[in-house]
Amino acid sequence: MEHELQNTIALLERTPAALDALLRGLPEIWTEGDEGEGTWSVRTVVAHLIHGEDEDWMPRARVILQSGEAQEFTPFDRDDYERYSRGKTMEQLLDDFAQARAKGLRELCALNPTEEDLKRRGRHPVFGAVTLSELLATWAAHDLTHLHQISRIMAHQYRETVGPWVRFLGVMQCAGHSAAA
Amino acid sequence: MEHELQNTIALLERTPAALDALLRGLPEIWTEGDEGEGTWSVRTVVAHLIHGEDEDWMPRARVILQSGEAQEFTPFDRDDYERYSRGKTMEQLLDDFAQARAKGLRELCALNPTEEDLKRRGRHPVFGAVTLSELLATWAAHDLTHLHQISRIMAHQYRETVGPWVRFLGVMQCAGHSAAA
Repeated sequence: MEHELQNTIALLERTPAALDALLRGLPEIWTEGDEGEGTWSVRTVVAHLIHGEDEDWMPRARVILQSGEAQEFTPFDRDDYERYSRGKTMEQLLDDFAQARAKGLRELCALNPTEEDLKRRGRHPVFGAVTLSELLATWAAHDLTHLHQISRIMAHQYRETVGPWVRFLGVMQCAGHSAAA
Repeated sequence: MEHELQNTIALLERTPAALDALLRGLPEIWTEGDEGEGTWSVRTVVAHLIHGEDEDWMPRARVILQSGEAQEFTPFDRDDYERYSRGKTMEQLLDDFAQARAKGLRELCALNPTEEDLKRRGRHPVFGAVTLSELLATWAAHDLTHLHQISRIMAHQYRETVGPWVRFLGVMQCAGHSAAA
């Protein structure tokens, strides 16, 4: 594997343990609160991460290696997370994410993509041609976008509690920014 | 201790392990890269967190309980982090942060502030009267603002690597937002 992919894997393999250390046993104010009507809680974000392991990242990688641009990726409905979270405790969700991520990384290492493989293209339903390299890098960056979101959702719960410091904490000024893809 | 303070402590005691799980052994592209000239790397953020334990949070809490508004807080120079990071590996910084945080939490639990204590006021050099409750809540929210920043700094390293996905990842649109205080 080329160097960049090792950087991607190093991050991907750490995210479940980082979320576990942050969230396991944490009071529900932090994990069940959201940022207002129609927004996600931390619990929802973890369910979405499991959903991505199941239907987005490695499934799309396999499509690229098997069919290239001939087969467009199945659109990923990010609002379809509920079947991953229904009836589960936060602790079960953290376990499910760790297992799903470990499975995905085992598959990736078994594929052992070459430099040539990483340049192969697939077809994204929104923005067309993308390479396997871009897909795998986005898998890791997607962890970071949700770590960014989790810290923002949690901080929102203390918007009043911090008093005058609210103006000086960057996370309290963050407006979200994500778009579905 | 009242309920809210338990929520604060629950978060404060988890942050070092979460950062450890995310950052220990991670390739330097993630921990040494910054967001451009004059911006911080992840390494710098961890040094700043240690600095805060040493000179900001519990020292200010003690000032409130000992002197109330009579003694203004010593200004905290957030650019004075270098003596905490110089010559240290990332792993040493993570150890230093865990030790400093554990020490601060031991002190807080020994103080065991009452409801009345939490309402006591101190004097901030920029925005004047603040309560002990607000200071302690901000200690936790400050962890979140830097977790938010760390995820953004790391994502920045993959701005090119993710190709067309850059437009769809919220963390790539985040403009920072922090002000010194």
